[in-house]
Amino acid sequence: MSGEVFGRANDERTPLLRPRQEDRGNDDASNPFNYNATSSAEMAINSTDEDDRVLSQSMDEDNILGLLRRRRSYESQEGGVVSSSSLPGDLPHRPTNEPKTVRTGNLNLLSSKFESLDYDICENSLLIDEERTKGYQFIAKKDLLRWVIMIFIGIFTALIACCIDIAIEEGSGVKFNFLKKQVDQCVEDGCLSIPFLYWILCNLVPVLIGSLLVVYVEPVAAGSGIPQVKCYLNGVKVPRIVRVKTLIVKAIGVTCSVLGGLAVGKEGPMIHSGAVVAAGLSQGKSTTLRKDFKLFTYFREDHEKRDFVSGGAAAGVAAAFGAPVGGVLFSLEEGASFWNQSLTWRIFFCSLISTFTLNVVLSTYHGRPGELTYSGLLNFGKFDNTSYDFIEIPLFILMGILGGLLGALFNHLNFKLTVFRIRNITKRYVKVLEAVLVSAVTATVGMGMILYTNDCKPLGDDPTKYPVQMYCGDGQYSAIGAIWFQTPEGSHKLTSILMFFAFYFFLSCWTYGLSVSSGLFIPSLLTGAAWGRVVGMGMEYMFPDKSWVNPGKYALIGAAAQLGGVVRMTISLTVILIEATGNLTLGLPLMITLLMAKWVGDYFNEGIYDTHIRLMGVPILEWEPPPLSRNIHATEVMSTPVISFSSVENVGRIIDILTNERYNGFPVVDTPMYNDGRTFGKIRGLILRSQLIVMLQHKLYNETAESWSHKGYTLKLFRDAYPRYPTIQQVHVSDEERHFTVDLRPIMNPSPYSVMHSSTLPRIFKLFRGLGLRHVIVVNDNNEVVGIVTRKDLARYRMEKHMGNMRLSELTILD
Amino acid sequence: MSGEVFGRANDERTPLLRPRQEDRGNDDASNPFNYNATSSAEMAINSTDEDDRVLSQSMDEDNILGLLRRRRSYESQEGGVVSSSSLPGDLPHRPTNEPKTVRTGNLNLLSSKFESLDYDICENSLLIDEERTKGYQFIAKKDLLRWVIMIFIGIFTALIACCIDIAIEEGSGVKFNFLKKQVDQCVEDGCLSIPFLYWILCNLVPVLIGSLLVVYVEPVAAGSGIPQVKCYLNGVKVPRIVRVKTLIVKAIGVTCSVLGGLAVGKEGPMIHSGAVVAAGLSQGKSTTLRKDFKLFTYFREDHEKRDFVSGGAAAGVAAAFGAPVGGVLFSLEEGASFWNQSLTWRIFFCSLISTFTLNVVLSTYHGRPGELTYSGLLNFGKFDNTSYDFIEIPLFILMGILGGLLGALFNHLNFKLTVFRIRNITKRYVKVLEAVLVSAVTATVGMGMILYTNDCKPLGDDPTKYPVQMYCGDGQYSAIGAIWFQTPEGSHKLTSILMFFAFYFFLSCWTYGLSVSSGLFIPSLLTGAAWGRVVGMGMEYMFPDKSWVNPGKYALIGAAAQLGGVVRMTISLTVILIEATGNLTLGLPLMITLLMAKWVGDYFNEGIYDTHIRLMGVPILEWEPPPLSRNIHATEVMSTPVISFSSVENVGRIIDILTNERYNGFPVVDTPMYNDGRTFGKIRGLILRSQLIVMLQHKLYNETAESWSHKGYTLKLFRDAYPRYPTIQQVHVSDEERHFTVDLRPIMNPSPYSVMHSSTLPRIFKLFRGLGLRHVIVVNDNNEVVGIVTRKDLARYRMEKHMGNMRLSELTILD
Repeated sequence: MSGEVFGRANDERTPLLRPRQEDRGNDDASNPFNYNATSSAEMAINSTDEDDRVLSQSMDEDNILGLLRRRRSYESQEGGVVSSSSLPGDLPHRPTNEPKTVRTGNLNLLSSKFESLDYDICENSLLIDEERTKGYQFIAKKDLLRWVIMIFIGIFTALIACCIDIAIEEGSGVKFNFLKKQVDQCVEDGCLSIPFLYWILCNLVPVLIGSLLVVYVEPVAAGSGIPQVKCYLNGVKVPRIVRVKTLIVKAIGVTCSVLGGLAVGKEGPMIHSGAVVAAGLSQGKSTTLRKDFKLFTYFREDHEKRDFVSGGAAAGVAAAFGAPVGGVLFSLEEGASFWNQSLTWRIFFCSLISTFTLNVVLSTYHGRPGELTYSGLLNFGKFDNTSYDFIEIPLFILMGILGGLLGALFNHLNFKLTVFRIRNITKRYVKVLEAVLVSAVTATVGMGMILYTNDCKPLGDDPTKYPVQMYCGDGQYSAIGAIWFQTPEGSHKLTSILMFFAFYFFLSCWTYGLSVSSGLFIPSLLTGAAWGRVVGMGMEYMFPDKSWVNPGKYALIGAAAQLGGVVRMTISLTVILIEATGNLTLGLPLMITLLMAKWVGDYFNEGIYDTHIRLMGVPILEWEPPPLSRNIHATEVMSTPVISFSSVENVGRIIDILTNERYNGFPVVDTPMYNDGRTFGKIRGLILRSQLIVMLQHKLYNETAESWSHKGYTLKLFRDAYPRYPTIQQVHVSDEERHFTVDLRPIMNPSPYSVMHSSTLPRIFKLFRGLGLRHVIVVNDNNEVVGIVTRKDLARYRMEKHMGNMRLSELTILD
Repeated sequence: MSGEVFGRANDERTPLLRPRQEDRGNDDASNPFNYNATSSAEMAINSTDEDDRVLSQSMDEDNILGLLRRRRSYESQEGGVVSSSSLPGDLPHRPTNEPKTVRTGNLNLLSSKFESLDYDICENSLLIDEERTKGYQFIAKKDLLRWVIMIFIGIFTALIACCIDIAIEEGSGVKFNFLKKQVDQCVEDGCLSIPFLYWILCNLVPVLIGSLLVVYVEPVAAGSGIPQVKCYLNGVKVPRIVRVKTLIVKAIGVTCSVLGGLAVGKEGPMIHSGAVVAAGLSQGKSTTLRKDFKLFTYFREDHEKRDFVSGGAAAGVAAAFGAPVGGVLFSLEEGASFWNQSLTWRIFFCSLISTFTLNVVLSTYHGRPGELTYSGLLNFGKFDNTSYDFIEIPLFILMGILGGLLGALFNHLNFKLTVFRIRNITKRYVKVLEAVLVSAVTATVGMGMILYTNDCKPLGDDPTKYPVQMYCGDGQYSAIGAIWFQTPEGSHKLTSILMFFAFYFFLSCWTYGLSVSSGLFIPSLLTGAAWGRVVGMGMEYMFPDKSWVNPGKYALIGAAAQLGGVVRMTISLTVILIEATGNLTLGLPLMITLLMAKWVGDYFNEGIYDTHIRLMGVPILEWEPPPLSRNIHATEVMSTPVISFSSVENVGRIIDILTNERYNGFPVVDTPMYNDGRTFGKIRGLILRSQLIVMLQHKLYNETAESWSHKGYTLKLFRDAYPRYPTIQQVHVSDEERHFTVDLRPIMNPSPYSVMHSSTLPRIFKLFRGLGLRHVIVVNDNNEVVGIVTRKDLARYRMEKHMGNMRLSELTILD
């Protein structure tokens, strides 16, 4: 039967499943599916045994990227005629079950520990009953509550952002005054090493505190949190990412990092904060605080929670950049696959509330209540009257290309560094030590630069508030302003800007990925503003008389190019920058620059967030199915065999299966046939591990299959347990009860989405992604369950560059 | 078998389909589906025969809305216990086949003449072969081409907008100078009736021309075009909506309408223009011009075309309002169900190009080349420094409520008027006469107001450019400026503003729906600005000393409230207004106002575009499935029986079926059994009418079923014929050829999305909407085709207000 392409045919973990003829019903020679299947088999797979041999060799550091990349690649063929010998039976064997030869810290692994969120609503009879009983008023009430919760998410996100901002501002003030006193004393005595040591100390201590918190209390709070939020919005459960503990560590950690003078910003962590606030508020309970407020229990499902988290992330962006529209677009760009008008509207409202709250609080804090002029924490200064000329567009394109190149270099260096960290810096105290080391180096470089360049006297009579602002705390934002607005005749000489650029580029690259909470936006913007400023100086030199030559504008474009080259965000970043500068006119230049930066950068590698996500092994799904994948069929993609349950099932069997298997979803079938461990049967529904556990925990089973009573079956049981269900080991069932039977039908999802075994990968992908599913059941011609497709099965397939060509490659799934 | 709920059981058009026991395989008592099906049956349907009796009575004008609303309503029950007698067998009979008692011009009809666009890609073997043969380069090339086309869409859309704008400006100038000469002459002679007659004439002639064009040349060009574009983006094929002829009539028509002094704007038509430009450019051919440029043939499918049209609509918004981000959000809000990052990015680029082009052209036209300060056609003036105070928020809420009330009143009056027009103004010349009448009344009212109020001397020595600007052409936009920026001490007295408001409200209501091209944005903004101005005066009177009391701000909020109350757009309108005013600070006030206006307005009726869409009977799909519909199952929703084809089919049978049936998609099944006209068989694929016609047209059939040659089968045949395929009558097949056989397998979609017969309406809805499908096949337990669900089947179900409660009601499908 050439019609069946069973990709995992020789895989040990997934033994050969070749349905016997009688199981496949009318699957005879006249079966029209054969037409297609044959053509897909013919189109087979130009891979040789060499790929496999390569894998089994031990690999050294350098070629791990190239060689591990693919074992079997579906090359894009120019011809089309393939020798008939490459039939499915000859498919090279997939080494997914040989993880020994694979080292961590590369881009081609998928960790199997990440689970999908489930956007699909389990329409079991309990839900239908609830809907019928409570009627429209219930729906209207839920809808109103969603708005109320969004208001609170906006307010709390902004308040946390304010706290971080004020703490940094006050802390910097204290630190500055202390250092100033030391220097003043020293200038009299003629020494400089003592204030230098004090400076180092003032930087080391906060970084040490921040790093200890992150390493020992909550490691998931490291970094900017944007990759994690991105994963969550993409539909992946990242453990502990939306807990209150994470939020606390993150908020204190980022304050410490910024106070410690690291090359970091506070914006990324604010986005993460917003996500945590949203998850916490919408669920009305907290695992960290061990408190269930019994509020909003109807929102205790992945679907609702993810909607709120989208709002929280948007509110975080809105607070950080004063960009409510940018916040909405960020959430959409990074997350929501299904655009929903009313949800988007709520997210926008949440963002605006957040901007407004931040505005009110900061205006009041700065002694100008009611003025509402603080539109965001990141202050770009005024760009109101900046315009541009037609002939500048080529320059913007060139700057975009330069940003893309620099961004790609940054990402490459950071990638190498991160791989090194994953492999070598595994001990906790080493992580803390590295953070402290970076802090010391940063302080030394900063001090050295100030002394060397003599640009501004170290701590002299400068009338500005914090003269050495470039390296202390919130001064960074003023530094952007300084780089943009000061004329070349001002205090910044060309050499000092170039030195700043070089040091800051490498320092921020070294810093990102440390075990501290840190954002990447500000360092990238600063780096880019520095070289953009240099471009601006050059333009002024070349066109001294043109009115449109404004060095500040080039600094902004440079900042955008650098940031775009690093993070590769597009539409949301454009809008964020438009909103942060308050200048709509520069929209097209910003966009052209970002577009070029993305295209050029993408030629070399991925955005930094995506690189980190792939190093984590998160099975993230792209927007579109991988190209050239229409010759891959469900039979190849799916996991098989599938463990299924009968609709009326034995308690003991459920416990055994849950104990021995790690699957989270089980098809429910009728008339299962027990033959060599596999069950076959017509699809009846889908039941989740969590549902089974709750049922067992509450003993929703009967002694005999005849005496049904569904009295205890309420949705409340399932909502109360969400989202952290007990393990099967925590559920106690007596030996006698093991012979009881469970009726799965009132609980299971009675009509899960399923696809035919002949469906192609793009088709399954679209279904999965478009509807936010967690499981897709694959059925054969008789509606019998033959496989199941989960996120990992789809995320395996990726388009990768290989020897200059694009190829469809497959990632390795690690257990 | 209580398990089967066949909704159309007694429907004449769809005779009873009750699969015999042997067809349904394992559907015995232990079938777990029964659990669910029974519960859905129990939950049945609280409807009585009364509903039906009401329908059969003849209805008078007044109760048509209330009574026609529903025949069978699924009431939201408080209890939940329903008498067991209301089993499916007792379901009241659906009168979808009794259109005699239903009059046109109500909200509860769906026309069956509208077809769905098909977002799903037919993954037949030709496509897979193409993908395999052409490889990745082909994909990259297509992607690049998409960008290029988007650039051109942006440029051409902006150019058309510029042409309309310049034509209006020049035309107004000519008209004004002519009238001024007449008045000057008359002031000397002491007469006023002659210039009045000239004024009337100057208005009547353009309106007459515009109206004749619309009525006799292209009726679909009437109105703003936004409802039609909205339908198209929603996935409905609206005939002739994206043709070049429509574009020409629209562009000339709207110029005439504005020149004729009607209470209309030119913004809506620009959005429509953008959509036409996009459709034309992306397809590389034009039906109107009968020209096929053989360009971009790979984009000849619904999927690609709709993507480009999204970009065109966004470019139209960007050109009209100088709001590129607003344009993107408009396209998303009105259309795209599946948010796609790269598509959105392209749309944004297209919008920015459009803004930029408009900017360059208008700057040059106005003699200031290179300045790039014209950001859009709608000039709101400068709001740069306008801020607001916390205590103003309640006022914004009140203004939002007022806007909602006024908008609902506007929509109600316009709805009544439109129903009257649909029923009574059917003759073409009467439509033209009505337009001319409205024009004459508008001119008279304008003249009268000027004479009565003596606000500004009719055509005297006023130094401004067009003193009687309020009623001539583009002067309207200056009028907004005047209302917003002039202080109350200026020329506008309170009474004249109130009179303006009252007349303009009713005139614009009368005008919308006339057979002329016309936009609704400007009249609504003007009306709202007028009453907002009055609020501003009141605030100044009450708080004379507050710095934040700025009458211009209230005029803007009033304009937003009125427009929001009429069109009920939300996120995109907020962003459009933010971008048009260039003021981000007023984002929250605008949003609060729009939110209140929408909520209050939605309490009474729908947005005006939605009302017109429903009066057209377009089967538009909401974002979410109707609430309280989980007790409706596929068996009830689907059309049944289904005409199916065998995978190798007889030519004669295909011709007969295509001639006698109007369906557009046919399931392909194996072993069809011919019993009383129905075919039963396992699902093998889906074939479209258009595909069959192209196959017959090119004689892709063989004499015997044994001698296959798929030589002539290329995708080109299908792309060349897109989108207007011949009818079956135009395809000539000889009597001998009728006995030949066609192999459908290489052409059909081999794995169409299907759902189980037990799936619920929300589940099918999400699949359909999320993936943009045109057909969903319903299969039974054995994977046999039992029904098919199309857009109309889903659009029938709507949540409606009925006696103060919300109910799920069902619309009537007209043939």
